[in-house]
Amino acid sequence: MSVAEELAKKQREISISEFFERNKQILGYDSPTKALLTVVKELCENSLDACEDAGILPDVSVEIQKSGKDEFLVVTEDNGPGIVKKEVANVFGRLLYGSRFHVLAQKRGQQGIGVSGAILYGQTTTGKPTRIRSRPAEMDVAYEVDLIIDIRKNRPSIQEEDFVTWDKPHGTRVEIPLKGRYITAQQSPLEYLKATAIVNPHARITFRPPEGEPIVFERVTEELPPKTMEIKPHPYGVELGTFLAMAKETKSYKLSAFLEEEFSRISSRVAKEICERSGVPPETKPKGLDLEEARRILDAIKEVKVMAPPTDCLSPIGEKLVKKGLKNVLGSLKPEFYSPPLTRDPAVWQGNPFQVEVGIVYGGDLPPDQPVQVLRFANRVPLLYQAGACAVTQAVQAVDWRRYGLEQRGGSGLPFGPAIVLVHVASVKVPYTSESKEAVAPIPEIMEEIDLALKECGRRLKTHLTKKARRAKTREKFDIVQKILPRIAEKSAKIVGKTAPNLDATVTKIMGVIWIEEAIAYDAKVKRHTVTIDLHNFTSAGKKFNLHALLPRSAKLGKVDPKPSEMREDGKVTWELKRINSVEKATVTLELLGLDKEEYDESDLYVSGISPELVIGAEPLPGDWELDYAEFEPEEGAAPPPPEEEEGEIDYDETEEVLEDD
Amino acid sequence: MSVAEELAKKQREISISEFFERNKQILGYDSPTKALLTVVKELCENSLDACEDAGILPDVSVEIQKSGKDEFLVVTEDNGPGIVKKEVANVFGRLLYGSRFHVLAQKRGQQGIGVSGAILYGQTTTGKPTRIRSRPAEMDVAYEVDLIIDIRKNRPSIQEEDFVTWDKPHGTRVEIPLKGRYITAQQSPLEYLKATAIVNPHARITFRPPEGEPIVFERVTEELPPKTMEIKPHPYGVELGTFLAMAKETKSYKLSAFLEEEFSRISSRVAKEICERSGVPPETKPKGLDLEEARRILDAIKEVKVMAPPTDCLSPIGEKLVKKGLKNVLGSLKPEFYSPPLTRDPAVWQGNPFQVEVGIVYGGDLPPDQPVQVLRFANRVPLLYQAGACAVTQAVQAVDWRRYGLEQRGGSGLPFGPAIVLVHVASVKVPYTSESKEAVAPIPEIMEEIDLALKECGRRLKTHLTKKARRAKTREKFDIVQKILPRIAEKSAKIVGKTAPNLDATVTKIMGVIWIEEAIAYDAKVKRHTVTIDLHNFTSAGKKFNLHALLPRSAKLGKVDPKPSEMREDGKVTWELKRINSVEKATVTLELLGLDKEEYDESDLYVSGISPELVIGAEPLPGDWELDYAEFEPEEGAAPPPPEEEEGEIDYDETEEVLEDD
Repeated sequence: MSVAEELAKKQREISISEFFERNKQILGYDSPTKALLTVVKELCENSLDACEDAGILPDVSVEIQKSGKDEFLVVTEDNGPGIVKKEVANVFGRLLYGSRFHVLAQKRGQQGIGVSGAILYGQTTTGKPTRIRSRPAEMDVAYEVDLIIDIRKNRPSIQEEDFVTWDKPHGTRVEIPLKGRYITAQQSPLEYLKATAIVNPHARITFRPPEGEPIVFERVTEELPPKTMEIKPHPYGVELGTFLAMAKETKSYKLSAFLEEEFSRISSRVAKEICERSGVPPETKPKGLDLEEARRILDAIKEVKVMAPPTDCLSPIGEKLVKKGLKNVLGSLKPEFYSPPLTRDPAVWQGNPFQVEVGIVYGGDLPPDQPVQVLRFANRVPLLYQAGACAVTQAVQAVDWRRYGLEQRGGSGLPFGPAIVLVHVASVKVPYTSESKEAVAPIPEIMEEIDLALKECGRRLKTHLTKKARRAKTREKFDIVQKILPRIAEKSAKIVGKTAPNLDATVTKIMGVIWIEEAIAYDAKVKRHTVTIDLHNFTSAGKKFNLHALLPRSAKLGKVDPKPSEMREDGKVTWELKRINSVEKATVTLELLGLDKEEYDESDLYVSGISPELVIGAEPLPGDWELDYAEFEPEEGAAPPPPEEEEGEIDYDETEEVLEDD
Repeated sequence: MSVAEELAKKQREISISEFFERNKQILGYDSPTKALLTVVKELCENSLDACEDAGILPDVSVEIQKSGKDEFLVVTEDNGPGIVKKEVANVFGRLLYGSRFHVLAQKRGQQGIGVSGAILYGQTTTGKPTRIRSRPAEMDVAYEVDLIIDIRKNRPSIQEEDFVTWDKPHGTRVEIPLKGRYITAQQSPLEYLKATAIVNPHARITFRPPEGEPIVFERVTEELPPKTMEIKPHPYGVELGTFLAMAKETKSYKLSAFLEEEFSRISSRVAKEICERSGVPPETKPKGLDLEEARRILDAIKEVKVMAPPTDCLSPIGEKLVKKGLKNVLGSLKPEFYSPPLTRDPAVWQGNPFQVEVGIVYGGDLPPDQPVQVLRFANRVPLLYQAGACAVTQAVQAVDWRRYGLEQRGGSGLPFGPAIVLVHVASVKVPYTSESKEAVAPIPEIMEEIDLALKECGRRLKTHLTKKARRAKTREKFDIVQKILPRIAEKSAKIVGKTAPNLDATVTKIMGVIWIEEAIAYDAKVKRHTVTIDLHNFTSAGKKFNLHALLPRSAKLGKVDPKPSEMREDGKVTWELKRINSVEKATVTLELLGLDKEEYDESDLYVSGISPELVIGAEPLPGDWELDYAEFEPEEGAAPPPPEEEEGEIDYDETEEVLEDD
């Protein structure tokens, strides 16, 4: 037999379960410690998804029992809709079997692998089956089954089954035995559940550790997050081959109908326009499209302005929870500054909408001489492993943080400093680096969005640091002026037997600034912040300028005095102030309703129409104030440019020049 | 219909090709730039494996043609054994179909996914088929086929096929069209092929870029690396469930036969011992084993000393090529120091033998103020992506390099300094983090081996740096003594009209050291290094001590004078020197044969039997000289402890104390 024939004899098909049995690390089972966390993660994600799909406020309990020297039993229970008897074995006992794979919607699980992978790991390391109990609401009893996976065939193998009474009206309970190691420090099941609770405030999560008391993360809202709608793929970034494959499989008879029905954001008018531009007639049978025609259609799609994807398929965490998440991580440590969290507008990667959120805390009690901590989330799930492979970490490392006030040798790599950065990526399809769903792959479109969000938050941090530094410098001067001068005046007055003069004019001559300070009071009963901003004109001439504030979008505005000349939906408020005479002051008061006390502690103030060096307590208005937050107004027939055209760094240099004092 | 029933309706099976179509990033197709590299990588690995399997010196050509705006055609051709016609479509057109998956041997490809994944990416992004031409030696003509993958079914779909004449006597040619982006800098196809050529010196690799002249990496040896043998799994680390599954499927009728036949390193005597210790009789039918018995057997295996795995299943790069690889990366930059490359003894992870090799270069022309460069290899394949996720990178980051002379803030993270570290992991099964095979998963056993290897190389670097620093200090003193003193003596002598005295005794009084220096001459015609070591006794009393040298294992020893008292296979040579009187010197000469000139430029010298502060030019003998390189002698009936028991850091502190001079 020739060499080629010998090699041919060895060729065989490999089942997906065999593959993962031998490559458990791809599913996240690198080590017993990590394996325990991965099993908890998979079961918890399933429970949360199931409850949310059915519109049920999740009640999930996770118990880890020690059952042997290196052996544990992980038991999770939820109040979800349950699984019908005939699907139980398939859902748990087959890899790549599930309901969410073909659906484009933001879910935690998306592969049909997670739970079956956990069962595979359990039986491989202990030889024991997994026990599942499930009860849909319409059944009087629960169905309970012990099963293992037949690895050669990728099919469930039922060891025992029965019907049992269960006092839970509906839900699912899973018990997986496995070899593991239990830790409580970083990257532990406890840390995972804590972080999960933070970004899922509608869930009640109970954790029963191997030793010690149960820990309950109570629900903090009775509102489910808005249900994420399924969508069709967005046409931007759909691959040529995929497009042709969709065309071959579509039920539509005409090209224009195919475009309208199979893609999101293509109306019949837009479909017609695409056909015209591509030169392919709208009545063309999709199945008959050839390569050249498909290419022209995809090119035409890029030229026709198609609206950005709808936002109802995504469920970002939201600025309030991002800030809360950061606070929770801090525990009792008080930072000096919260950069207002940033939610980017949705963007698209290969037809899949996604959205990036970033928040940064800085200073205060945070230890200064260590690497910045990066908290990663994807689809409301904390990512604790494989940081180095993750788009989030790589994006953080690629930013030159020295421009934003952190230390970073050579301008790349993880920066040093007293800061924590939180990044959340939400998508109808998160591109993970492997089936263990531990890291987001560095897809260029996603990297770019994270980069822009990080830099914007970095700018806000820099603004704060600069403001703080200038204030500190001027404060010194001011303190001297405010404290010492009057005493000198008093003493001198005494000595010469005259009354102490009013020093305001003198202060003015010395300071030469517009000094802005604010006081914030909070009334917990009505959840109202009252912000009083005093603008002292300590210059020698009258000044007329504008004051701007960036208020949190989640707050309602109450009384405002004086009336602003502009109030925008994105939180930007502008006052065209009346002229303030020398040595006089103006006062602006405003009320913010609906925030918790700690949600607002410092106003984000800007000025325009005056030379910025004259102002202490507010920054010059950034040039991109207008562009950054372009509100997307869907008008019939018009469409804004695709998100890829946004530039993040437009006016930084301008702002930088203006800010630099020395 | 209830919620549970609605969800049940959506449950379906997902084919593996569908899964990877939607998760291309898992296979390495994150972006067009990376995709082009990944396709080149997969095709090249296949060609090299095929040639080596068939005992053919590989001749592989890779061509990248630009065929459109973002489109390329990658064409590879090899002189391998070819593929028989009836297997071609299956091998290329089905994912998880292959010959190497069930085999435990060191190969580059091990999954049955790589090439089919490349074809999948190609057709998805261009809509075009892949063309394969293959000719086994026994055929007169080649079989040529254009195929795509039917993604729903994971089956090949032949578009066209034919027989063609081909002047190549045997081989395979693959042409894949794809969307890509061509770069030449880091992480590019050129860098990949260059690094591949370095660690595969038996291969001739031709690269035809889209523009410019072809680049040929010529073969530098006519010897194929030793063929890696298939092995059975090693019993250490086999999981309980896997063991039971093997027992159910075995053809053996008795437990003792099952153990002997299905595992490596279990002789009939060892099998009997395992049965005795576990209390499970040797005649037990394997199929009938229960969980408890299996557990006892696995525990017994741990207690019985089973020999370390055979080395013939692994093909490490070897110290010579590790050093050459580092040199090649340097190009014209000359480093100051090559830490002698280190090859660890084979170890085992979950039944799979593996072996780690490390080499470090330092200083000289290497730029000092940047992060240390880490070159990663697995199974003779360069790993260019996902560094952050890789066990190698993580192991480098976890070592406290400050002890070894590099800068590293906080003692963790990538160190800074003028150094390059090369790490190679060879295994019968490399645990990659994902199917793209870009990073080695941080399996604990593997992390530990890499850590020990890095620290040992680090110690050698530190030794060099310390030696260099001390030498520099003493050299100053010595220069003064050797240059100025004689002139003073001469002048003084002139002045007083006497002859200049011999100053040796004076030098001795001042220096108070044993000064060791060496000269190395090279005769290229006979490939011989002649090393002359002069040991000057510049102390005031006679000294008797031992000299030791660590010679490269790849060199043959020629004439040695005086005759050493010990010469070991691992390169360690010891001379018990005769007493050297004060002011006198001893000379040791030795010849090294078979090395290239640049392979030996500095001797690794140690002394014992003398207080180390008295010696310049050799380091004190490390305490672990004996243990580190314990030669493994397989004696019938005896076995050394499993590799896990080695300690790497045993005597560092002792050595450190001894070395510290200030």
